[in-house]
Amino acid sequence: MSEHKRAREARFPVVGMVGAGQLARMTAQAAVGLGIEFRVLAASPGESAAQVCPGTVIGDFRSAGDLLGFGIGCDVVTFDHEHVPGAQLAVLSEVTAVRPGREALAFAQDKLAMRNRLSSMLKRDTALAESGIRCPRFRPVETLTDVLAFVADEQAGAGRPEWPVVLKAASGGYDGKGVWLCDGKEAVAEVLSHGLRMLAEEYVPFDRELAVLAARSPKGQGAAYPVVQTVQRDGICREVLAPAPGLCAEVAERAQWLALRVAAELGVTGLLAIELFQCGDELLINELAMRPHNSGHWTADASVTSQFEQHLRAVLDLPLGATGCTFGAAVMVNVLGGDDPDLYSRFIHVMAADPGVKVHLYGKQVRPGRKVGHVTVAGAAADVERLRDRAWRAASYLSLGTEESPL
Amino acid sequence: MSEHKRAREARFPVVGMVGAGQLARMTAQAAVGLGIEFRVLAASPGESAAQVCPGTVIGDFRSAGDLLGFGIGCDVVTFDHEHVPGAQLAVLSEVTAVRPGREALAFAQDKLAMRNRLSSMLKRDTALAESGIRCPRFRPVETLTDVLAFVADEQAGAGRPEWPVVLKAASGGYDGKGVWLCDGKEAVAEVLSHGLRMLAEEYVPFDRELAVLAARSPKGQGAAYPVVQTVQRDGICREVLAPAPGLCAEVAERAQWLALRVAAELGVTGLLAIELFQCGDELLINELAMRPHNSGHWTADASVTSQFEQHLRAVLDLPLGATGCTFGAAVMVNVLGGDDPDLYSRFIHVMAADPGVKVHLYGKQVRPGRKVGHVTVAGAAADVERLRDRAWRAASYLSLGTEESPL
Repeated sequence: MSEHKRAREARFPVVGMVGAGQLARMTAQAAVGLGIEFRVLAASPGESAAQVCPGTVIGDFRSAGDLLGFGIGCDVVTFDHEHVPGAQLAVLSEVTAVRPGREALAFAQDKLAMRNRLSSMLKRDTALAESGIRCPRFRPVETLTDVLAFVADEQAGAGRPEWPVVLKAASGGYDGKGVWLCDGKEAVAEVLSHGLRMLAEEYVPFDRELAVLAARSPKGQGAAYPVVQTVQRDGICREVLAPAPGLCAEVAERAQWLALRVAAELGVTGLLAIELFQCGDELLINELAMRPHNSGHWTADASVTSQFEQHLRAVLDLPLGATGCTFGAAVMVNVLGGDDPDLYSRFIHVMAADPGVKVHLYGKQVRPGRKVGHVTVAGAAADVERLRDRAWRAASYLSLGTEESPL
Repeated sequence: MSEHKRAREARFPVVGMVGAGQLARMTAQAAVGLGIEFRVLAASPGESAAQVCPGTVIGDFRSAGDLLGFGIGCDVVTFDHEHVPGAQLAVLSEVTAVRPGREALAFAQDKLAMRNRLSSMLKRDTALAESGIRCPRFRPVETLTDVLAFVADEQAGAGRPEWPVVLKAASGGYDGKGVWLCDGKEAVAEVLSHGLRMLAEEYVPFDRELAVLAARSPKGQGAAYPVVQTVQRDGICREVLAPAPGLCAEVAERAQWLALRVAAELGVTGLLAIELFQCGDELLINELAMRPHNSGHWTADASVTSQFEQHLRAVLDLPLGATGCTFGAAVMVNVLGGDDPDLYSRFIHVMAADPGVKVHLYGKQVRPGRKVGHVTVAGAAADVERLRDRAWRAASYLSLGTEESPL
């Protein structure tokens, strides 16, 4: 070991995060507590995390030069999104540890690669498949004929209605972008006209959506959080109930086992979030993310270790923190931008109305429909409906003009 | 209201904190969550909070010019210590809201003024005095003759041993500095030779030390945290048990009422911490602080609202947050610098040994005896001795070479 390297190891490491949205902002908060120096690569100084991180570097995550300039001063580089292209990740890996690595990120970037790999894993790992875990049926598609063949074989052929069918862009999607629910040929034709690399997926008439979050370190230590229920609307996560109400312990354990198994299979370092459909006795794998995830925001207020701290611990190969709930139940509701730009006045009102609600704001300008914050309310498991009521009241008031609470 | 002022009110406010130690650092973390822009006035860029706050201003808190330059860009200025001189506070108040204000801070800066004011309050407020709350007997002293007269009148005259007696510098002390326990004339003569403005105080053979923390906003809203037990050694807080074990509800309520009463009496805005001696049925007022306080660090991991968030809410005149414990018991132990400068390696070991311990590090260089972090362990009230054991194990390992755990 060189003297230089030894000297570096005696100090606290520097973690860089590519991307400066709210995930990076909340990771910065966790880094302060750990004593870790934390920097972000931001597109502009006004971005959510750039506002709160000294030493922010302004640059383009698609530029190898900008990534190199950023990475050279960091011991580890990680990400608040999965959009850095593979070639640039390879360049970045020459100068610093990149976690998760390029090979793992490829599966978060390319849904077809992810589906193929997980399908092959489930074929090998019969225990998982036998426990009712599977991928939705899928097939790469280019033409309307391909999609019609998929619908005939995999939906009608399985005794299901022909329509709707799901089309997904193989890469580049997030928050529901790049996913289309098509109810007939015309809709399919329109989606295909975008000219993207696509896959067709079986439409899953799920009972509810679940998510499971796990961390894995380079040494291979893993830790999974309690399984949560998520409620999406227009492809955006609106509400998370932690732990998922009424989920039987066996299914929860199966989902946690899946997350740890997939993290190891794909060589993930850092966090892995898996979005699941619960459909009768089956758990179907919907999407993956390799970063702090909206479904894990509740951990900052109601778990021993927040997902943001856990991600830092994992990418630094530090021992992972305890993942238990510190309350019987927690409810997280996203705050979307509404018609009123004066979020501060609304904030005051929410604090006055409920001194126990935890409001997290991201420093973002209010634009209708944009995620500008979230609220968490935690309490006893038996009170979950009351917790939901309090969380939705707070979020709805902050989101004036967006849709009403479902309660 | 001017257009300028109205425009300012539509955005989120900027809070400036004078001083950049660990209290400012942890307040910065809370500001990130609230979406509040937070700046510090630091003596150097390497200071604990300066490392994590963009827009840190380097300057001297004793310089009116530096304070003005800092304060002009802030909506509210507050403090992580009480050492800004009154004249400079007056100048600063011309350009921004200063919270707590000069009049309140005078009582945190001058122990004689504080003792006089609280004694007069207790004379007026007979309910407090009747409930067993009092100040230690005290008297300003200049000469050995003054001290001997105090000892004869107030200690021997009250049927107590003549020695020891407590001497305190009227201003400038912190963390036990400026406080002397004198066991005879020679010791007194040596302390007086420092030439400071002094007071003599009755030596209180307390059963234990307690602390109570309350917040008060400019509108007069108040909120008190559960009363805690503190263990000091060499004038430095080593351990905090929250809530104070075995404290009867009536005494706890009395202490909370005292904190709210004193905050109103002195016109405090922000946090007020009162250190108390419990002595039989009596509660004696020891020291005051008007800022986040070491005895409240546990709130970041085990209360609904951390003291750092509460301080920001109070100085911004926002509604205050809930102050309840989220665990049956929490134990905080300070990490003092030890013989090993490589805190990071020790940190890893502690995380591996106990995934449920919360370690907070301040980004400070290790020097023997210096506060470089703290640990918190929370759990069930019945397990408090086990929680203490875990917290001391973690802190002792991080503090290699400092004194042993008391367990």
